[in-house]
Amino acid sequence: MLLIVGFALCVLAPGCSATDTDIALDAKATLNHRIQSLDLLVFVFLLALTVLTIWLFKHHRVSWLHETGLAVIYGLIVGAIIRYAGTSATLVHMQVEPQGVPTYSDKLPPDTLWFRYPVNQTNGTKPPEGIKTYAYVFRGQVHDVDENEIDLKATFDPEVFFNIILPPIIFYAGYSLKKKYFFRNLGAILTFAIVGTTLSAFLIGGFMYGCVKLMPKYLSSSFTFLDSLYFGALISPTDPLTILAIFNDLRVDVNLYALVLGESVLNDAVAIVLSGAIQNYGEHYSNTGEFETTAFLRSLSDFFSIFLLSLMIGAAMGCLTALMTKFTRVRDFPLLESALFVLMSYSTFLLAEATELTGVVAVLFCGICQAHYTYNNLSEDSRQRTKQIFELLNFLAENFIFSYIGVSMFTFPKHHFDAGFIITAFICAAIGRAVNVYPLSWLLNIKRKPKISTNFQHMLFFAGLRGAMSFALAIRNTVSDERQTMLTATSLIVIFTVVIQGGAANFLLNWLKIPVGVDDETEQLNNYQVHSDVEGGGVNRNKMRLSGGTDTNLDTPVDGTNGSLGGASGGRRRNSHEKAILARIWGNFDTKYMKPLLTHSRPTLLETLPVCCNPIARLLTTTQQLTQDGSEFRRVDSDSDICIDNDTGNGLSQDGSGAAPGVGRRNSLSRMEILEHVQSPVSTRIRLLGFYGKKL
Amino acid sequence: MLLIVGFALCVLAPGCSATDTDIALDAKATLNHRIQSLDLLVFVFLLALTVLTIWLFKHHRVSWLHETGLAVIYGLIVGAIIRYAGTSATLVHMQVEPQGVPTYSDKLPPDTLWFRYPVNQTNGTKPPEGIKTYAYVFRGQVHDVDENEIDLKATFDPEVFFNIILPPIIFYAGYSLKKKYFFRNLGAILTFAIVGTTLSAFLIGGFMYGCVKLMPKYLSSSFTFLDSLYFGALISPTDPLTILAIFNDLRVDVNLYALVLGESVLNDAVAIVLSGAIQNYGEHYSNTGEFETTAFLRSLSDFFSIFLLSLMIGAAMGCLTALMTKFTRVRDFPLLESALFVLMSYSTFLLAEATELTGVVAVLFCGICQAHYTYNNLSEDSRQRTKQIFELLNFLAENFIFSYIGVSMFTFPKHHFDAGFIITAFICAAIGRAVNVYPLSWLLNIKRKPKISTNFQHMLFFAGLRGAMSFALAIRNTVSDERQTMLTATSLIVIFTVVIQGGAANFLLNWLKIPVGVDDETEQLNNYQVHSDVEGGGVNRNKMRLSGGTDTNLDTPVDGTNGSLGGASGGRRRNSHEKAILARIWGNFDTKYMKPLLTHSRPTLLETLPVCCNPIARLLTTTQQLTQDGSEFRRVDSDSDICIDNDTGNGLSQDGSGAAPGVGRRNSLSRMEILEHVQSPVSTRIRLLGFYGKKL
Repeated sequence: MLLIVGFALCVLAPGCSATDTDIALDAKATLNHRIQSLDLLVFVFLLALTVLTIWLFKHHRVSWLHETGLAVIYGLIVGAIIRYAGTSATLVHMQVEPQGVPTYSDKLPPDTLWFRYPVNQTNGTKPPEGIKTYAYVFRGQVHDVDENEIDLKATFDPEVFFNIILPPIIFYAGYSLKKKYFFRNLGAILTFAIVGTTLSAFLIGGFMYGCVKLMPKYLSSSFTFLDSLYFGALISPTDPLTILAIFNDLRVDVNLYALVLGESVLNDAVAIVLSGAIQNYGEHYSNTGEFETTAFLRSLSDFFSIFLLSLMIGAAMGCLTALMTKFTRVRDFPLLESALFVLMSYSTFLLAEATELTGVVAVLFCGICQAHYTYNNLSEDSRQRTKQIFELLNFLAENFIFSYIGVSMFTFPKHHFDAGFIITAFICAAIGRAVNVYPLSWLLNIKRKPKISTNFQHMLFFAGLRGAMSFALAIRNTVSDERQTMLTATSLIVIFTVVIQGGAANFLLNWLKIPVGVDDETEQLNNYQVHSDVEGGGVNRNKMRLSGGTDTNLDTPVDGTNGSLGGASGGRRRNSHEKAILARIWGNFDTKYMKPLLTHSRPTLLETLPVCCNPIARLLTTTQQLTQDGSEFRRVDSDSDICIDNDTGNGLSQDGSGAAPGVGRRNSLSRMEILEHVQSPVSTRIRLLGFYGKKL
Repeated sequence: MLLIVGFALCVLAPGCSATDTDIALDAKATLNHRIQSLDLLVFVFLLALTVLTIWLFKHHRVSWLHETGLAVIYGLIVGAIIRYAGTSATLVHMQVEPQGVPTYSDKLPPDTLWFRYPVNQTNGTKPPEGIKTYAYVFRGQVHDVDENEIDLKATFDPEVFFNIILPPIIFYAGYSLKKKYFFRNLGAILTFAIVGTTLSAFLIGGFMYGCVKLMPKYLSSSFTFLDSLYFGALISPTDPLTILAIFNDLRVDVNLYALVLGESVLNDAVAIVLSGAIQNYGEHYSNTGEFETTAFLRSLSDFFSIFLLSLMIGAAMGCLTALMTKFTRVRDFPLLESALFVLMSYSTFLLAEATELTGVVAVLFCGICQAHYTYNNLSEDSRQRTKQIFELLNFLAENFIFSYIGVSMFTFPKHHFDAGFIITAFICAAIGRAVNVYPLSWLLNIKRKPKISTNFQHMLFFAGLRGAMSFALAIRNTVSDERQTMLTATSLIVIFTVVIQGGAANFLLNWLKIPVGVDDETEQLNNYQVHSDVEGGGVNRNKMRLSGGTDTNLDTPVDGTNGSLGGASGGRRRNSHEKAILARIWGNFDTKYMKPLLTHSRPTLLETLPVCCNPIARLLTTTQQLTQDGSEFRRVDSDSDICIDNDTGNGLSQDGSGAAPGVGRRNSLSRMEILEHVQSPVSTRIRLLGFYGKKL
């Protein structure tokens, strides 16, 4: 072999025209690639370290520090090491001007500059090889012309968060949302998320503006109201991962869990759209900088239209996936099915971004629809696989972002520490959260049957940790000093709330005497168990036991019964006055039209649509839907638990107790309902089969 | 709420200083983001379409078109549509020169240019707001200064392939490699992959150079021997996905399957290192462009050192993961365990890249080690999850790259069609493949006991499809006309071989009378079933039935028996003269030291290490290893099938038959061996437990 290689190289012809500059450029490109790999390696190493440490913590039953808190702390340590130990490669820059007579014909600076540079001019041994032209690509405005060193150690383009890190987190939040308790508390969740977040944003904005104006520093002159409003919007969304993990471990009251989780999922969506609208107001609509009615109304319509359109795109793509999985037999090939699921979910994000909507919001509602409809059509293999994949992606993305928050405290070059601003921000964030929780709870309690007790309100207030979304919004735009001050304050608030507030949650739960260990409801709570798996004899039952001890009661009878309870729509009409009207209307519509259309559930469209629509209904009803037997029928419908009432006293009770007693009663009730319900569809099914048979 | 918003905006202070230029820049950035999202959306849509169509094909049992072929075809169609239907946004560029007196103090052009540009100069209503400074980032050399339009529709940075698309494909190849048949044919596979690929690269390079020099065109003057050598290296690796899928469906002879798969996995690694060494020769080592002994030797040592070091990094990281999973109880938390597995595997790639080695090669050997050692330590949940995740990633990445090959034929701006070169390339690629297969088979057949029959050689020749690696290497560097011509030829060769050659494989299998339907060995063949799952009563048995009908025989008794066969190292010593010496030595070492160290398998290090090392051995042996009973012992060791001999006539036989008869005999033999083996360790275990008990 060596001979051949030698022979081959012997006939080498001339033609290697690499200059010294080329070689140096090549070496520089290699170096850049190495540095990028090293940067990523730092974070991967951090994550691996976090995983190992959190295993140790879980192993020794330490629950006061969540993995995200640990990731932040490790991030801070590594960030400090990088900052003070590493050497920095300074970027060389050169001032240039147009060649010849400048013709600024365009409003915009050019996309690329072509720069002629003499090569090999320092190399005396060879004749200069002339001038080469290099292309330079537009990056952005230089705000601080005096600042010489641009130090970019272990930092990423902030858009990475919006395009790579946040989508899987938000999708998973939607995909794993416990629909039953979510819909039961829909009114309260929507109030907290939409009204509360907006209220909090504007109040924080107002307070901050007032406080900053009182400060003697330079900030008071340059800090605009829009800036402080933007800060209000970005600091309002909550991210109570730590609290939810503790709730999950301790099996806290389900409705409290649903409120905290539901609010945190939705207020991310609200905050990102709100901050976009505020930014648009400043950049596009307002000419003078003063308040203008037109500009304000346009921003307002922006807010609602972007939110609703993003929601619709997400829901539409989710439903489209459901249709695809219902009307094809792609479930025979689980790999293809999973691939289709992932591709459709990702395309939702891209579609929303391509149409100038908010991909994150679209992906959230896509996730909810995928869980509500598509999940029922998937094969067992795909159910597991999609859950596991998104669970892992969510885990990695979450911990990556928290590591980055830690590391960037030291390495991100655009931090701006201002003690006054930071203290004010902490106080305002707390006030904003209080305004979000207490007055709205009071308002809700007027009409709400299981009232939100004072202790629960305190817990809700306390669960206002700030997290990934706040940080991503803060780091997105750091061009001005004000924005940099905001980033620093936001980073510190996130770190403080995640580590300190998260760590104190256990203690507070005891202190507020919030009921824990609500055993019978745990299956509903388990955040890591997306859906109860009611199928067959427990084969392939998916036990993702992140939290160690909570998977033991998956096999209790309650499991199966709750699942089938969902299928029994007979429970829907009882005590419906206790539920939000919105949830009731939607529940009706969903059971009658959406589920029969998008999944294999009963009743079919042939039963729910008026007779005149029978041809269409027949077309949209699969044979599987008509021929399935009772057990399969229950299974397929296992997550339509939107319609369960909380008439048995295990809702949010004033004294914080009374969760357990109702369960037994409910179960016995629902078993009867199932019997009633199963009997009636059987006859219908026989009739329908005859009908369908004619067609065939 | 509206009131509050209104009130808040009423107190808006001035300070919105957005200029027209800022707004236009913002709009442009938004547009760019939209276009990028749209580009990605095109590919996601293409993949979804491919998934749906391939489901239809599989549903109707159409096997002549593989999903990658379909992806290429759809890519071509969509590429043509984009090319001829879309409008193009031209980039504006401007020639610049240094401000003031130029001081070219550095050999390198600067990293960034600062460009002062007057804003709002076209807006008459407001006074000009002065000059802003914009930063421009270095991109690269402009080679064709006359070319005005840089058209970048639906294209990606080629480095995306090396850093994002290839790693999961290559890792999965290593992770899912069937070790038994791989090691049984190790000699032949290594010969084909290392010697064959190098031979083929140099021969193709030589032929191409000769042919090009005969051409009257401009190419003959600028085309260097290094260029053609690089072309030889990039066109040599094979990627017979289609063929393997058909082999899998039809259950073709296992040894042929192992040869084709093993070679294709390893020659990717060889080719990427070889092409890197050739490039280094041209850029760094050779000053004159003529053949130089020093430069040649340095390139040669590059080739071997980079290959071996990458291999070692990959293997070391795989073993480190095995140690982590063995000595911690992280398996109690499958999510953490899976996360650790993914992070360690990814960090292998980054580590290799950061140390200027080849990440792709490292990841391949990491995958092999993860499958060989770590997989045995994982919990059942993590086994499934990691297999499923990498299977899905592999599927998406593969189809993405083939879609991109199709689309880029029309949209990539740097194609250069040259009919003569393309025809020559096709002929040379075929000759190179022939030189790879026939002479080496003849050489191997001198010593090899089950010889590679002529028909099998024809099939090996025919299985030389080109794929992802060739394309990625070709598109990596397209600065010169010669490189662009190579890219075009490579793309066409890939498309032709995947679609036409892949489609004809079925026919050829019949024509060459290659035995298919080797039922009893299918479990070993199944590419999508990474390991046979021998545990317990078949609960959680993972059926990834991509190929529809091949999972039916997973539950045959052969399954469990083969698995335990692997554990019975008693079979190792029989007929060992028939195996490659390399494989035998390694097998011995592996069973005696590596497996006991890295997994929970028996015999433990206490048994295999000399007595003097007992303290260390005791430290490295887990209680689980000592206390496991026979059944668990067999399970843990289920994939140590490196040591199975092919003495029963089901190897590569001259007449192409005789695969089935031997199986029964081998099974009966091995069952006896297991019994013998299980009896002896029990006594050893008792002794060891006593020994261990003293320590506790």
